Amino acid sequence: MSGGDHLRLGPGREFDLIRRFLPRASRFGEDDVIVGPGDDCTIVRGEGLAISTDLTVEGVHFRREWLTPAAIGYRAASVALSDLAAVGARPIGLLSSLAIGEADVEAFAVEIMEGVHTAAERVGGAVLGGDLTRSPGPIVIDVVAVGEARTPVLRSGAAPGDEVWITGALGAASFAVARLLLGERPPEAAMTAFERPIPRVPEARWLVERGIPRAMIDLSDGLTGDAAHLAAASGVAIVLDPEAIPLHPAVVEGARSRVDALRYGASGGEDYELCFVVRRGALDDAVVEFETEFALPLHRVGVVEAGAGVFWGREGGGRDPVATGAFQHF
Amino acid sequence: MSGGDHLRLGPGREFDLIRRFLPRASRFGEDDVIVGPGDDCTIVRGEGLAISTDLTVEGVHFRREWLTPAAIGYRAASVALSDLAAVGARPIGLLSSLAIGEADVEAFAVEIMEGVHTAAERVGGAVLGGDLTRSPGPIVIDVVAVGEARTPVLRSGAAPGDEVWITGALGAASFAVARLLLGERPPEAAMTAFERPIPRVPEARWLVERGIPRAMIDLSDGLTGDAAHLAAASGVAIVLDPEAIPLHPAVVEGARSRVDALRYGASGGEDYELCFVVRRGALDDAVVEFETEFALPLHRVGVVEAGAGVFWGREGGGRDPVATGAFQHF
Repeated sequence: MSGGDHLRLGPGREFDLIRRFLPRASRFGEDDVIVGPGDDCTIVRGEGLAISTDLTVEGVHFRREWLTPAAIGYRAASVALSDLAAVGARPIGLLSSLAIGEADVEAFAVEIMEGVHTAAERVGGAVLGGDLTRSPGPIVIDVVAVGEARTPVLRSGAAPGDEVWITGALGAASFAVARLLLGERPPEAAMTAFERPIPRVPEARWLVERGIPRAMIDLSDGLTGDAAHLAAASGVAIVLDPEAIPLHPAVVEGARSRVDALRYGASGGEDYELCFVVRRGALDDAVVEFETEFALPLHRVGVVEAGAGVFWGREGGGRDPVATGAFQHF
Repeated sequence: MSGGDHLRLGPGREFDLIRRFLPRASRFGEDDVIVGPGDDCTIVRGEGLAISTDLTVEGVHFRREWLTPAAIGYRAASVALSDLAAVGARPIGLLSSLAIGEADVEAFAVEIMEGVHTAAERVGGAVLGGDLTRSPGPIVIDVVAVGEARTPVLRSGAAPGDEVWITGALGAASFAVARLLLGERPPEAAMTAFERPIPRVPEARWLVERGIPRAMIDLSDGLTGDAAHLAAASGVAIVLDPEAIPLHPAVVEGARSRVDALRYGASGGEDYELCFVVRRGALDDAVVEFETEFALPLHRVGVVEAGAGVFWGREGGGRDPVATGAFQHF
């Protein structure tokens, strides 16, 4: 199926809907995609393909009064694309499944898919397929991200002596959610961080092309929780320096105290920045170039040591175990 | 990550749950899977990969009083695997996302995933990843099926003069659902057809290896609806012979009349048999061998003609347009 083709499905209101929201999907290169939307499967070329699936549930990850339908779709897709960034993959495309109530389908479905398309196109991907079903419950979106990753960077490559770095500044998205839950209007910059997370795809590719990260993860559960995943996968301890964690200005300004702000930054989650581990000194020569290229700061937030778990501390100082602060679904 | 490894995730109840239900996932071959569950993405090898995603929603596709949790998972996975069969792909594995209420997670989540595992293993696949989130609504399962399809059979290859064939017998699953909706207990054989659909993976591979199907689809929406997809994708008309449609014995026995039985067989949906198109006579020499190999009948149910849409009729006789009878989600 080539780029310009229309979807050739049989008659029916469900298929009319699919036809309405999938035509924008068709801008993909034949180098990557052999068969796009409209058949039983999407067929993709590639030697090492990265695949990830992420659920977004109304009432858990968002409320409809907080986000426009397009932002709901954009956010769900960005979260999935962030997993591709986390392994250094080049996005090929998304498959997007939507369960939605009959009363909502007209007002939401097409716009949600518009948001999914926009997020995919922003990182050079396309919408390659999906599923649509009615549901008596909340809006549920499952986005499958597919990318090329010939040399994926896993969570398991950290070794004692390494340094832990992150992109960007943390805490704004969870700070916005906390304000929304209180019925307040979050500061604009915090709301944007929650509403339109930016999957760090080009940043991750830049780092991986230079062979810099030995282990990497995207910050979805919060820095301490995701550092715990890195530590567990690598069989090491990670020591984070609380003074080194870059906090988003909206959090510093809006939080009740430095401790309150650090709580959002360290364990709030949903930042979708990269957290990666490098050999000691391996990033030093590249920091300025990276920050110039992407207008995005890099910060060294900790070190890797022998052992297990995540600790607060500084090199040469004491160690305090970090309470499990990641967002818990159950 | 090799076969025997445990999942190395950080602490937390959610991750304890994931650890509990993913260990069985790890039996995959390194020829296909470079990175399995536990990292940000699954990494898969392969020249042409088929990917499909299928949503299953409680209250739409099943009710919890109808099916055990294991059957819910088994069914959701089989439906996704049936899409791989439809393009003649060899299954590599599944990614399975589950949105479920906090009160249900203990009783349902692990058993649902057991059912997903069982369905995957039955066709030589593995569970390669997924997502788990709480939900205030119905149980929602999204299963992503991944398979190898170097020479996929699409919906678009049918040409005038071809024959339309199907595997198995139709109508039992939708007949069971109709009984369940009336609060009746369906005949055992019909209930099994609904509860444990069999993705026709080896059957499709057998046919594709012999170069027999020119176009293929799996019967999820019902024969008339899925024939409409084939016809639309191929730019042809399909003429189905109502007398030739093989009806499941449970339907013939239980339905009020032949017309009633044909309604289930032609438009009931959820049969997950294969519907495929061959050059005239191309299957004749292979029918007995196929039926012996798989203990599964093949039936020629129609022909392909120039034109558009789906009709009832016989060669040389009149044509009646088929009312759109496919299950409509909206």
